[in-house]
Amino acid sequence: MKKLKVGILGATGTVGQRMIQLLERHPWFEVSAVAASDNSAGKNYAQATRWMLETPIPESVAKMTVQPCQPGLDCELMLSGLPSAIAEETELQLAKAGMPVLSNASSHRMKADVPLLVPEINPDHLDALELQKKRIGSRGFIVTNPNCSAIGLVFPLAALDRRFKVEAVHVVTMQALSGAGYPGVASLDIIDNVLPSIDMGGEDRKIETESLKILGKWRENRFVDAPMRISAMTHRVNVRDGHLEAVSVKLGTAASLQEVESALRDFGSPIDELQLPSAPRPVIHLESHVQRPQPRLDRDRGQGMAVVVGPVSPCAVLDYKFRVLSHNTIRGAAGAAVLNAELMYRKGLLA
Amino acid sequence: MKKLKVGILGATGTVGQRMIQLLERHPWFEVSAVAASDNSAGKNYAQATRWMLETPIPESVAKMTVQPCQPGLDCELMLSGLPSAIAEETELQLAKAGMPVLSNASSHRMKADVPLLVPEINPDHLDALELQKKRIGSRGFIVTNPNCSAIGLVFPLAALDRRFKVEAVHVVTMQALSGAGYPGVASLDIIDNVLPSIDMGGEDRKIETESLKILGKWRENRFVDAPMRISAMTHRVNVRDGHLEAVSVKLGTAASLQEVESALRDFGSPIDELQLPSAPRPVIHLESHVQRPQPRLDRDRGQGMAVVVGPVSPCAVLDYKFRVLSHNTIRGAAGAAVLNAELMYRKGLLA
Amino acid sequence: MKKLKVGILGATGTVGQRMIQLLERHPWFEVSAVAASDNSAGKNYAQATRWMLETPIPESVAKMTVQPCQPGLDCELMLSGLPSAIAEETELQLAKAGMPVLSNASSHRMKADVPLLVPEINPDHLDALELQKKRIGSRGFIVTNPNCSAIGLVFPLAALDRRFKVEAVHVVTMQALSGAGYPGVASLDIIDNVLPSIDMGGEDRKIETESLKILGKWRENRFVDAPMRISAMTHRVNVRDGHLEAVSVKLGTAASLQEVESALRDFGSPIDELQLPSAPRPVIHLESHVQRPQPRLDRDRGQGMAVVVGPVSPCAVLDYKFRVLSHNTIRGAAGAAVLNAELMYRKGLLA
Amino acid sequence: MKKLKVGILGATGTVGQRMIQLLERHPWFEVSAVAASDNSAGKNYAQATRWMLETPIPESVAKMTVQPCQPGLDCELMLSGLPSAIAEETELQLAKAGMPVLSNASSHRMKADVPLLVPEINPDHLDALELQKKRIGSRGFIVTNPNCSAIGLVFPLAALDRRFKVEAVHVVTMQALSGAGYPGVASLDIIDNVLPSIDMGGEDRKIETESLKILGKWRENRFVDAPMRISAMTHRVNVRDGHLEAVSVKLGTAASLQEVESALRDFGSPIDELQLPSAPRPVIHLESHVQRPQPRLDRDRGQGMAVVVGPVSPCAVLDYKFRVLSHNTIRGAAGAAVLNAELMYRKGLLA
Repeated sequence: MKKLKVGILGATGTVGQRMIQLLERHPWFEVSAVAASDNSAGKNYAQATRWMLETPIPESVAKMTVQPCQPGLDCELMLSGLPSAIAEETELQLAKAGMPVLSNASSHRMKADVPLLVPEINPDHLDALELQKKRIGSRGFIVTNPNCSAIGLVFPLAALDRRFKVEAVHVVTMQALSGAGYPGVASLDIIDNVLPSIDMGGEDRKIETESLKILGKWRENRFVDAPMRISAMTHRVNVRDGHLEAVSVKLGTAASLQEVESALRDFGSPIDELQLPSAPRPVIHLESHVQRPQPRLDRDRGQGMAVVVGPVSPCAVLDYKFRVLSHNTIRGAAGAAVLNAELMYRKGLLA
Repeated sequence: MKKLKVGILGATGTVGQRMIQLLERHPWFEVSAVAASDNSAGKNYAQATRWMLETPIPESVAKMTVQPCQPGLDCELMLSGLPSAIAEETELQLAKAGMPVLSNASSHRMKADVPLLVPEINPDHLDALELQKKRIGSRGFIVTNPNCSAIGLVFPLAALDRRFKVEAVHVVTMQALSGAGYPGVASLDIIDNVLPSIDMGGEDRKIETESLKILGKWRENRFVDAPMRISAMTHRVNVRDGHLEAVSVKLGTAASLQEVESALRDFGSPIDELQLPSAPRPVIHLESHVQRPQPRLDRDRGQGMAVVVGPVSPCAVLDYKFRVLSHNTIRGAAGAAVLNAELMYRKGLLA
Repeated sequence: MKKLKVGILGATGTVGQRMIQLLERHPWFEVSAVAASDNSAGKNYAQATRWMLETPIPESVAKMTVQPCQPGLDCELMLSGLPSAIAEETELQLAKAGMPVLSNASSHRMKADVPLLVPEINPDHLDALELQKKRIGSRGFIVTNPNCSAIGLVFPLAALDRRFKVEAVHVVTMQALSGAGYPGVASLDIIDNVLPSIDMGGEDRKIETESLKILGKWRENRFVDAPMRISAMTHRVNVRDGHLEAVSVKLGTAASLQEVESALRDFGSPIDELQLPSAPRPVIHLESHVQRPQPRLDRDRGQGMAVVVGPVSPCAVLDYKFRVLSHNTIRGAAGAAVLNAELMYRKGLLA
Repeated sequence: MKKLKVGILGATGTVGQRMIQLLERHPWFEVSAVAASDNSAGKNYAQATRWMLETPIPESVAKMTVQPCQPGLDCELMLSGLPSAIAEETELQLAKAGMPVLSNASSHRMKADVPLLVPEINPDHLDALELQKKRIGSRGFIVTNPNCSAIGLVFPLAALDRRFKVEAVHVVTMQALSGAGYPGVASLDIIDNVLPSIDMGGEDRKIETESLKILGKWRENRFVDAPMRISAMTHRVNVRDGHLEAVSVKLGTAASLQEVESALRDFGSPIDELQLPSAPRPVIHLESHVQRPQPRLDRDRGQGMAVVVGPVSPCAVLDYKFRVLSHNTIRGAAGAAVLNAELMYRKGLLA
């Protein structure tokens, strides 16, 4: 089988590196081009990159010349790990030039015709692409994956909402350093410390707004938010990878603790039958030990693509509470984009 | 002025060390005896102790011989930093022998006639002592200070409850390592990690139950809990000192953001006029920057005795949310016991 | 092929866990018994163990019942991760009962007829076993692997000694937390800190004495130390795994920088031809970047069995200086014992 | 007494902040002007600065307007915490305009007529100023203090050299994060890690060259290096403040362990009689516990101005070995510049 050629935008950054790592032995895709900022363009990838991962740079990529982020790259599809400041313009330009762009940036996530795709939850959001292509006037398009702290949260919410309806959600995050990119958080800021209000509160708002879109519907040519209230408080903690979140929920219909746990444990996804290479089975791991999940011990479950939910207990204020952990640069960034690409490939949207 | 002689129980431990540090130049009290477990008893204090603080051991204490924790110590008052397992029996025995015991242990906190004292909030709880002395059959007694994570929480709650009534409280904690004592948390457990459910959830319950007692009333010879619901989720993070808590509250009466902030800022305490040496003025510091409070930068406010509250914002699920930080071994342990002693001294309860 | 049955002593500890992990899919060996202290004996392995590794407990081991550390275990060979305090007696007892014991403890390392084996360096030290068996009066015996900080050092020393003779070695270590076992180092001791003189200086002496034995000869029925002087200063740093060492050497014969680097790069081992499953090829990785090796980025080279040496530079006091990094619980403990077992199996010493 | 007006260059940076903190209640000096890069110039100091210290910004400074780093500032003396890239030009320009500049930057340290001043060690190096002033053609001048890792080392070396002559020095450093300024070291680089070769080895060379100048003589109008060989290997570790160094020395004349320790303990300085406000008495603290000094426990000795030396032991390669710790932003930067200013003031060089 001939593999689809994939270009990586922002290839030298934290997310770009993970994309390259995850595609190293991918059965359907291969990295054919790497693009980054003008500083890096023209250099050899290995030289241009401060590689931060434990596995070495894949040999075929190490030798590639970094290209500028412009149309004309040798690929059939692009995964973008660009920072938001640059992504908005660049990704649109590439989509207009006919390229499918699977973006990890926040720039286009909340646009009225851009899917904020989580394959296990809202694959039907891809229906928005028809409208988007018309707007852009191209066969290219943009599909986004969620913010790295929203992604963990939406899985248990989807599981509970499907069975009991979720009315209200309170979430407090303890997020890893790699979520801020590189160089990101200064060591002097985080040693012996916790930093509240990531991105001056911008992260709180992303969780609140993106989750509603993800859990909502594409109906009559527009996205309709899920009818629930979400309140988020974010924090950066001294952890390398893995976002931990403390969640309380109020349900629309009464449910016993056992029913809630089985809704989480039995969460089945519409894409289970598609056998996507990066889709974890199951996607939700329900842990029974009260001191789990922990970032260091649980972030790599399902090759970093599963989300781990701790034991559920009654909440004296809302109905139930639990914790959720997900790997922020895999499930919450690079792996999410790869899984989105796999779904679209299987559905014939990348041909 | 002749100083009151104070004995320290559990003098070699984390909390005992802080007590000794805080009393070094105290205007009313002086350390006259140090007591600890049988392992240490008989040794010179400096040799028996793995001193962990940046300031040196006070000279007069360094040379003392560690005593066993039994009646007969040369003091008029005892501050106890004993671990709970030992505290229950030992403290009761000393109180029965006629000694005032100001305890940091959890053992007696929830007893029906033992004050869980926070001078700025519930000084009237000391009225319970009369009943307690009768039960014990002694002029000695036990007074306790709260758990190190409850203490920070109750200040903003007291301020808001006084003006608007508080109906419900959701709190997620990020707690420092020193809260677990020494050796406490293993370094292999906390490096690159967060540990949920401190004390297997026991810490969650302490916050929930102790706060209700502290904010409640002593009425008709019994403690009546404050009529609010509290839900707590606790976490250990890689911070040395300073517990940070993310709090959401539902109020009994409508209040604007400005009213809520001014209730916090203007919190006045019934003991303000007493000029207690360790009482911070004000006790609540309201911070306006969205990325404050931070443990490392804010834990030492008011010599570690103030609590720092971050900016208030509306909560999409309850009414308002904010953060609170307090120094867990000062305001949350040793300093709390010292302040309790100061209040009782001023009120003539230690004569 | 039928696999050799291996028992693990100290199976619930840090090193025992690694041994079990490393043997999970081993081509020659399989874990057939797990033994630990009386606290754990009788329990199911999964329940008795605070498993600290990212990969799950191998299923076959999870269900085993933990046995006491006594003769009678169902195995043909034992790997021991016992702490030294217990190892001395227990291992000897098992050897006397006829069992081959491959020990990670320090107890027997310096004994006059016990090999301190590093397969790539001194496989001939196994000749000492004949004498040992006579002393013990059994077909059982004890073979040891080095201290976790000595192991990294001896590889570059062996490479240089072979070509140029090494006269003097100065080494300063920065060692990982896992080297102290679990619970090991208290988090309050290491946060924002470095701890000098591991084991009150005992670690310094292990490096100095063990290295001389490893690099020495078995000659006329006794071990003769290598004729070099070694001076070690040890430190614990806030790193999970991976011991970094700063080394300066004085050579017996003049050598250019290029000659020194090529001696390191071309280090060939007498066991290369044996194709042992856990033997890394090459065992010394010579890094050219001046800011390498780093514990987090380089500890997993060669599945944690390689040692990584940084660039060599002239030393103004001795002749040359460089850094060396090795994974302390793999190459420096569990993996070392497994590799020793592989060598002995290949040589027919375990039949 | 009227205080001398001091301007702070690089006032918003890590070192500038410490300078302002240290001068808050200084008996001789007061901060009269703060200057920083063009980004900050024109802003209120409190707004322009990400203040990182536990004590609040001194009120009088908080309200000052940040000025550009140019001649014309309202002060009689400048302390400079400028980064080296900018310091070279700016400091020279100010000196030429008649200003005494006490600089923490490396730019001018090794110049042929610029004192690299450590008051307790080489106060006579100030004699070079006469020549410097002539070169510059101004009554202004530049005096520098050493690199933050050289400063700790030179104290024990000076003590030993004075008594026994030092022939060779081997030093391996474990340096704190604050030594790299802010934002400095990325948290992703240092979590669970150690970084070798600070500044790509530039730090090693500073230690080697600066120490020789500091310990050398001003003789016949030029600096003559101390006749010893120094070899340095530097590392960044996950510690906020406090550089720890493992040192081995070869002496020129034989000395017993007791003689070496007493040379360190009894180190007396030519400035002891001057009673300078920031001079610690004694400057060398000799610790007897084998696990000291430790950065967190010992960095604040003598208000951060003392250097703490651990127990001395014989070295199998050179003669003796020990550790030394010093506070890198106080003794190693801001405090060093303040002490230099005090010495010069007392000597009438700032009138």
